[in-house]
Amino acid sequence: MFFASDNTSGVPQQVLDGLARANDGFAPGYGNDPMTLALRDRIRAVFDAPQAEVFLVTTGSAANALAIASHCPPWGAVFCHELAHINVDECGAPEFFTNGAKLVPLHGAHAKLTAHTLEHALGGAGKGGVHQVQPALLSLTNLTECGTRYTMAELRALCDTAKLRDLPVHLDGARFANALVAEGCSPAEQSWQAGVDVLSLGGTKNGLLGVEAVVMFDPAQAWEFQMRRKRGGHLLSKNRYLAAQMLAWLQDDLWLRLAAHANAMAARLEDGLHKHPDAQLLFNRGGNMLFVTLPRAIHARLQAAGAQYYLWPDSAVLDGPADTPVTGRLVTSWSTTTEHVDAFLAALSTA
Amino acid sequence: MFFASDNTSGVPQQVLDGLARANDGFAPGYGNDPMTLALRDRIRAVFDAPQAEVFLVTTGSAANALAIASHCPPWGAVFCHELAHINVDECGAPEFFTNGAKLVPLHGAHAKLTAHTLEHALGGAGKGGVHQVQPALLSLTNLTECGTRYTMAELRALCDTAKLRDLPVHLDGARFANALVAEGCSPAEQSWQAGVDVLSLGGTKNGLLGVEAVVMFDPAQAWEFQMRRKRGGHLLSKNRYLAAQMLAWLQDDLWLRLAAHANAMAARLEDGLHKHPDAQLLFNRGGNMLFVTLPRAIHARLQAAGAQYYLWPDSAVLDGPADTPVTGRLVTSWSTTTEHVDAFLAALSTA
Amino acid sequence: MFFASDNTSGVPQQVLDGLARANDGFAPGYGNDPMTLALRDRIRAVFDAPQAEVFLVTTGSAANALAIASHCPPWGAVFCHELAHINVDECGAPEFFTNGAKLVPLHGAHAKLTAHTLEHALGGAGKGGVHQVQPALLSLTNLTECGTRYTMAELRALCDTAKLRDLPVHLDGARFANALVAEGCSPAEQSWQAGVDVLSLGGTKNGLLGVEAVVMFDPAQAWEFQMRRKRGGHLLSKNRYLAAQMLAWLQDDLWLRLAAHANAMAARLEDGLHKHPDAQLLFNRGGNMLFVTLPRAIHARLQAAGAQYYLWPDSAVLDGPADTPVTGRLVTSWSTTTEHVDAFLAALSTA
Amino acid sequence: MFFASDNTSGVPQQVLDGLARANDGFAPGYGNDPMTLALRDRIRAVFDAPQAEVFLVTTGSAANALAIASHCPPWGAVFCHELAHINVDECGAPEFFTNGAKLVPLHGAHAKLTAHTLEHALGGAGKGGVHQVQPALLSLTNLTECGTRYTMAELRALCDTAKLRDLPVHLDGARFANALVAEGCSPAEQSWQAGVDVLSLGGTKNGLLGVEAVVMFDPAQAWEFQMRRKRGGHLLSKNRYLAAQMLAWLQDDLWLRLAAHANAMAARLEDGLHKHPDAQLLFNRGGNMLFVTLPRAIHARLQAAGAQYYLWPDSAVLDGPADTPVTGRLVTSWSTTTEHVDAFLAALSTA
Repeated sequence: MFFASDNTSGVPQQVLDGLARANDGFAPGYGNDPMTLALRDRIRAVFDAPQAEVFLVTTGSAANALAIASHCPPWGAVFCHELAHINVDECGAPEFFTNGAKLVPLHGAHAKLTAHTLEHALGGAGKGGVHQVQPALLSLTNLTECGTRYTMAELRALCDTAKLRDLPVHLDGARFANALVAEGCSPAEQSWQAGVDVLSLGGTKNGLLGVEAVVMFDPAQAWEFQMRRKRGGHLLSKNRYLAAQMLAWLQDDLWLRLAAHANAMAARLEDGLHKHPDAQLLFNRGGNMLFVTLPRAIHARLQAAGAQYYLWPDSAVLDGPADTPVTGRLVTSWSTTTEHVDAFLAALSTA
Repeated sequence: MFFASDNTSGVPQQVLDGLARANDGFAPGYGNDPMTLALRDRIRAVFDAPQAEVFLVTTGSAANALAIASHCPPWGAVFCHELAHINVDECGAPEFFTNGAKLVPLHGAHAKLTAHTLEHALGGAGKGGVHQVQPALLSLTNLTECGTRYTMAELRALCDTAKLRDLPVHLDGARFANALVAEGCSPAEQSWQAGVDVLSLGGTKNGLLGVEAVVMFDPAQAWEFQMRRKRGGHLLSKNRYLAAQMLAWLQDDLWLRLAAHANAMAARLEDGLHKHPDAQLLFNRGGNMLFVTLPRAIHARLQAAGAQYYLWPDSAVLDGPADTPVTGRLVTSWSTTTEHVDAFLAALSTA
Repeated sequence: MFFASDNTSGVPQQVLDGLARANDGFAPGYGNDPMTLALRDRIRAVFDAPQAEVFLVTTGSAANALAIASHCPPWGAVFCHELAHINVDECGAPEFFTNGAKLVPLHGAHAKLTAHTLEHALGGAGKGGVHQVQPALLSLTNLTECGTRYTMAELRALCDTAKLRDLPVHLDGARFANALVAEGCSPAEQSWQAGVDVLSLGGTKNGLLGVEAVVMFDPAQAWEFQMRRKRGGHLLSKNRYLAAQMLAWLQDDLWLRLAAHANAMAARLEDGLHKHPDAQLLFNRGGNMLFVTLPRAIHARLQAAGAQYYLWPDSAVLDGPADTPVTGRLVTSWSTTTEHVDAFLAALSTA
Repeated sequence: MFFASDNTSGVPQQVLDGLARANDGFAPGYGNDPMTLALRDRIRAVFDAPQAEVFLVTTGSAANALAIASHCPPWGAVFCHELAHINVDECGAPEFFTNGAKLVPLHGAHAKLTAHTLEHALGGAGKGGVHQVQPALLSLTNLTECGTRYTMAELRALCDTAKLRDLPVHLDGARFANALVAEGCSPAEQSWQAGVDVLSLGGTKNGLLGVEAVVMFDPAQAWEFQMRRKRGGHLLSKNRYLAAQMLAWLQDDLWLRLAAHANAMAARLEDGLHKHPDAQLLFNRGGNMLFVTLPRAIHARLQAAGAQYYLWPDSAVLDGPADTPVTGRLVTSWSTTTEHVDAFLAALSTA
């Protein structure tokens, strides 16, 4: 009953097979190998973006921080949701890579920003001239930290608002595939066609060992990105093993099938929770994450029975009055099975 | 009618006389001169802090950023009010000097933090371990950005709360003297006795050409501070001219008299505004700053008549419906005269 | 005929098998998994260092820069050889991670420092007080950039000299295993027993997909390292796949056998080159790297025949007079075969 | 007998008078005052550079580091002489402000670079692509750290060489005026006409309390400079007091007369030293600095007699065999008198 995070899952056999295929003698280092080139072309095709540049790193924090630093000067302001991963879960990686740019945390129900909120925030921003950091970038997350999903219209409205102030848009797509299959749109629609300039395309949470692609739809910052990647220690000499993973993942839409499965498991779990008299689901499920409020004592019994998941927010604890409502975060993955879900629901029914 | 800021004022003759006295032939550079030593001893006496180390810089941003960087690692969180100067008016200087630490902006009426707010913020902070910046420092401002003032009890409560989490406390005292004479306490009471570890003691807004002293009540970080000051380009070779200004300023309590005068002018202005039917004063005046709401048209006429002051917040504008209430910020200084105040009030009465 | 770098090789089957073993359902993220713990214990045993802390990253630049930053303040000086990888091949990664510390490049024949050179450099270093960066760290490389090797006595003398100024010692061990088997000493002897405080233990060049371990023999900086690793984007969520590679590599001394094989192939190549009338070998071979001077035309013919290797230094070119002596760098790896070597020598004999 | 540095001198009365004139009531802050504007126009006229932008700071380290950071990315290489102030006496300020760019220290007799040395250094620089910092800037110093002076032809040749690789040129002109009057050329000839793009125009060593102007002949980086200045804590609110000093200094060629006097005092000192049998002068005097080798015992007696100057290099000491030749650095200033010089020479004759 592993629902702590989709990054606690392993990887599908196809990905290991991809590694084995890549392990074919010598290959040029540092991304100058045929597989890295093939992956770039594959992603260009998948995203219908023939000019895009593609760079691989091994963590989402690196992808986000490098993408942001390549689009924001040290005196820039990055507008994001206050719950965004870049703001609360990366130990200041964006500030480190940008040399001290400022994240401007914005409110928004369900971890979603609205064009109106952004417009308001941009209203006075940077108007004090040299005394203030200058608006530089909008960073969105989809799926969001609350597991909700932006509609295409919402995404476009946010990007349009940013563009009115000449801000480029970064999308943290750690769960891009989960959002994509849930929304039923194309990769292009959910990225550059909506106005996204640079995408952190997450692979790790959706079945890779540790690969994230930064897709730059506007290649103007590509050289700067490469310098930052190298001096950030994120250019792997045997880059082919990263490319091989992602090639296997894109093959025959495996990435979409993995994400669809994770979403389906979350739906099954949601159905079960709906039927429980003490469970209250928060937020509209956008993909493979659920937030459910239960009496504290039930959480305690579930976890005693072996269910693994985080309470939410971080400050929530299992100690305290049994009746107090406490929220748990449940994440499904490509490797979650119906047995896992049903075991959890069974444990809940007896908890 | 100059009420834009206390830093638009000049300097009293005694300060220029101090410079002339310092201009006496050769002297060792970089703070190794007798006047710098004398100033250190003078500040130790004034603050009743014989162990304190004292370092001079020429701007408040430098004082704040260097003080903060000497007490906060790059992965640290600095808790401050969302309106704090360090958060909104220094173009990211703290982030630059700390190499990307994170300012955590907290809410609080009248630009004041409460111990309760701080306690709540500290509750879950950094509990995610390596994923999150770690609580490192509390930074307070007194007078605040809204011109309000902390009572000794409020200061102590905040510092006590910080100390429970082993956080040192920085005080941005750009208007320390204004707060001091208004509160009627001693420099020690308003700083280290309340729990402040490092103070930015502002001189510029209270009559100096450009001198701020960083007073480290705990000298443990003194060497680090000096390295940071030097590599920040803030160690002046002819440091005696900074020390001379502040020595003249401390002589015969000049600094307190200057601040008391500024406060008295603000009080006179406040009295006049109280009598105006359309004027609404915001916040309790703590020293030499006032925030007054007037119909927009009155602001327009005042400024047309030569009154100089900023609208508040930065995004406020003079264009728009005449009746809309708009807030102006009025700051008095050591060089504001009763004639200046009365001229402003006369202009208001006819506006 | 791939002699460009040992990082152009693939990985042995045992490493892929290790990945497959790790791919066993769910596991806690971010290094809180059993394999990461097992690897730490394994490295402690291998190095006879029960207190050591071990952290994994995916590149040598990350290992070096994070290790250095955890032992050097922004105003520190890092003494290293002028040819050191950290100085010439990491695009400023150490400067980035330290927030602007200064590498002090020292001369030394064959890319080796001597205790005397270090002593001389330390003589006046930092004596200007606050005006100068302060000696903070010695960083050595073994095997060196010229493929030479420090003897145990040389290592100890350098570390002893550093310790006289209270400097900790970092060892860039990208080719640690190659040096180890050539020197015939124990891991402990070649590291902490000689005076090394923190080691970048290279795996990638010796058969891993992309894993380097930072081994901190003094764990005092371990927490700081972890914060820096996270905010540098170098903490992998699925850390087990890094640990699994290195566990497989340490199993049954595989890492030593791989390195010994690479060294043996270099020895075979060296033997062949010795016999060639136009070839002049530079430096004493320390492990798996050779530098050979040949008439330019011979290089051109070798490369036309398919031999892959770099000219040295970077500025050397194939264009120019045919007779000019030009140096080539030849690196063997665990996957170099006698056929590869003999094919190269055959090509040389006809070139 | 103060010959330690020209920054141990005071300031001429005209500069204090300038401050008094500036102390005329209220003025807009942060450089938006009439005196700052007047100074900009004055410098444009003096340098015959109507497009130049001019910004004031209070230290040479700030001027240099901000100028460099505005022309060099974090992954840039700054070519400079190994003895340059930016390389050895600013505690890493350039590395801090650039976020870790690399200074490339070049050799050169008498602290002067040659076009040939630069050309050679640029030859292979950055050719390793993403693995290496990229050539970004040439930084020269005139007068040099050895008190020598570039001829116009030498300056032009260096700038021309830099421009062939598209590198902009920074000139550290802490003693620009001393070089100017010695060379007998115009400010334009010694700066932009020779190829200098950005100049640190030193005032402090030549009679100001603490003012350096950054003169950007190409204003393209002016906005970036202002952001960096602010977040570096180097934008003074009462900027008029900096402008006033420099206006007084430029008035009636005071700055040139001060520098010419300092140079004349150095010439007088040089004449006296030439006549001493044990004194050996190093380097060709370019302005107001001398380096003289004397038996150690004579240094000891001179300093015992009250002569103040530094031994050179920093590691030189007064302890040791009496006969050993030791070098001293003697710097004259605008306030050095013939009596000071003659007293020194008298002390020398009896030492």
